[in-house]
Amino acid sequence: MEHRLEEVAKQLKSEGLDAAFINAKENFFYLSGFHTDPHERLIGLMVFPEEDPIAVVPGMESGQLRDAGWKYEVISYADHEDPWAMLGESVKEKASDEIKIVGIEKDVLSYGRSELLLQQFPEAKVRDIAGILNNMRVIKDASEVEIIRRAAALADYGVKVGTESLQIGITEMEVLAKIEYELKKKGVREMSFSTMVLFGEKSGHPHGAPGDRRLEKGDFVLFDLGVVLEGYASDITRTFIYQSASDQQREIYDTVLKAQKASLEISKPGTRIGDLDQTARDIIEAAGYGDKFPHRIGHGMGINVHEFPSMSHLNDGQLKEGMVYTIEPGIYDPAIGGVRIEDDVLVTDEGYETLTKFPKELQVIE
Amino acid sequence: MEHRLEEVAKQLKSEGLDAAFINAKENFFYLSGFHTDPHERLIGLMVFPEEDPIAVVPGMESGQLRDAGWKYEVISYADHEDPWAMLGESVKEKASDEIKIVGIEKDVLSYGRSELLLQQFPEAKVRDIAGILNNMRVIKDASEVEIIRRAAALADYGVKVGTESLQIGITEMEVLAKIEYELKKKGVREMSFSTMVLFGEKSGHPHGAPGDRRLEKGDFVLFDLGVVLEGYASDITRTFIYQSASDQQREIYDTVLKAQKASLEISKPGTRIGDLDQTARDIIEAAGYGDKFPHRIGHGMGINVHEFPSMSHLNDGQLKEGMVYTIEPGIYDPAIGGVRIEDDVLVTDEGYETLTKFPKELQVIE
Repeated sequence: MEHRLEEVAKQLKSEGLDAAFINAKENFFYLSGFHTDPHERLIGLMVFPEEDPIAVVPGMESGQLRDAGWKYEVISYADHEDPWAMLGESVKEKASDEIKIVGIEKDVLSYGRSELLLQQFPEAKVRDIAGILNNMRVIKDASEVEIIRRAAALADYGVKVGTESLQIGITEMEVLAKIEYELKKKGVREMSFSTMVLFGEKSGHPHGAPGDRRLEKGDFVLFDLGVVLEGYASDITRTFIYQSASDQQREIYDTVLKAQKASLEISKPGTRIGDLDQTARDIIEAAGYGDKFPHRIGHGMGINVHEFPSMSHLNDGQLKEGMVYTIEPGIYDPAIGGVRIEDDVLVTDEGYETLTKFPKELQVIE
Repeated sequence: MEHRLEEVAKQLKSEGLDAAFINAKENFFYLSGFHTDPHERLIGLMVFPEEDPIAVVPGMESGQLRDAGWKYEVISYADHEDPWAMLGESVKEKASDEIKIVGIEKDVLSYGRSELLLQQFPEAKVRDIAGILNNMRVIKDASEVEIIRRAAALADYGVKVGTESLQIGITEMEVLAKIEYELKKKGVREMSFSTMVLFGEKSGHPHGAPGDRRLEKGDFVLFDLGVVLEGYASDITRTFIYQSASDQQREIYDTVLKAQKASLEISKPGTRIGDLDQTARDIIEAAGYGDKFPHRIGHGMGINVHEFPSMSHLNDGQLKEGMVYTIEPGIYDPAIGGVRIEDDVLVTDEGYETLTKFPKELQVIE
């Protein structure tokens, strides 16, 4: 079996599960190499402790699954067929013993689908297996890092386009459109999330929405964007000041940058994850802006733009080589505006590397 | 109670349900007026046959829910609180009798959330209530039609931008980027789905993906796109020929157009829905292209770009005033390319109106 599938099988065995049905499209992609989202139609993988896995896909997608390298059984169904009954049949042939404990992703599989699954295995009890996949996905291998590295470079490019588009009177939406236009020309089909371009006081809301606000002299300009490349996300934030910076703007910027760098500097295998948030938070609090940093320091990133590890100050877990996450402290004042500086970070064997490379020193754009 | 909430309450009563928990963000928006997607955080509405409903939203969103006009109880929770327990408490105070039958959207509510819900109502049996909401949403009121009309006009504009961007050697992705750029400048924040721009033989695949294919003389040019405006979707397809059309291209185009118009012409209250597909299919089959029209004639459209009614030839339901759906026959030949023509259609009291208005007669673009 392929390495990742083998690892799932091993975990099922050690946890005493007879099978697991994997329905989340991210986990399906992670284990099969095939990235698909057939919406209301069913996709899934049935994985066993000892036997080879089975994939279930709509008929029109089975060729693409094979092209992606799937070597095992495929149940490929037409719209008038019942994939659950076909899966049930196939499992009965394969697994000699009854399925008594079946793993599912409890937060993904719908109640309706769980009913259809359990109709095939009426004796089965349900166990959540999301943790198995989350723990595997949290450590990126070299091929994953390579893709994220390229996705991060495209995010850098998006910021570059943004800064070059700035001129007095242009609106946030016009700059946003320009950024996404240039990224599409580079072949980007999907952004990681709704691109954020915020001017002036609008940057003072961590979840602000771009609109018709026009750029003025002295504005903060905040870009937060990322792309999806070959199934992996990137995410960068940079903040600039347009034409003229006040002392208070400089102080806010320098505080955020100092906090971001301090959090980066302790990124290495063995560091308590919660310390990354706490380190940045302590610096922002010491500068008197503690109440203006209302969110976590960052989030794990990979197939999903938000995934494990949780970068909260409460996380007692340790950083490990191959983890990828964002470090993005911010200070937000609804009157003056806000500053956030965000990098995508890879934990290396001895320390860290930022995958986003756009310069971070305060830039007053002329 | 607001009209839509009253209708749900009435339906619960007539079906003998004690309560229903509504979790789908589309139904939440439809009933509350508040469009939100807090991802892993819980949103929901608990609706009762006789009592006023209760909304559950993350703390930071309760203000926006009120701004959207919600007049009833709000359970607004912080990240460290348990919204399910808070909901359970609130329901116990409100509904004097026990909850014995609770409605859920079986295909939306996750297994994990159903467990948490049922922990609060351990005696309750579960019933699917998706049909109640689907049946309500299938008939659009005047305010919904007005929004979809504006979304459709923006889709028309996207096609116009696309045609004006064409020149020998330009790539599909470059044209796509230009279309979305101009739509963003008009304030569009989200497309209904991944925009499709396909040249030449690539238009011969109904699910083709835009890429680096460069425009050549004699190519079919297929645009399929839509926007999301104030929570509602639009969806248009137009196909053109670049510079020089062969007789076979003209024949394919004319066949699809004839099929599309025939299907439109029978759109009025009382028509069997399945006849719309069958009418177009008969024309395409008679012209000898029956095996080259592999999909349904269209789909219902509203808050979701694909919703009810199902526009399959098997649908024995009748068209009713206020239904909105697409009519989009196509003929696809992987060697020559494909033609699809799609309008958004509103059923009026006496017939129909197409909400997309871009001209459909064959246009050979110079």
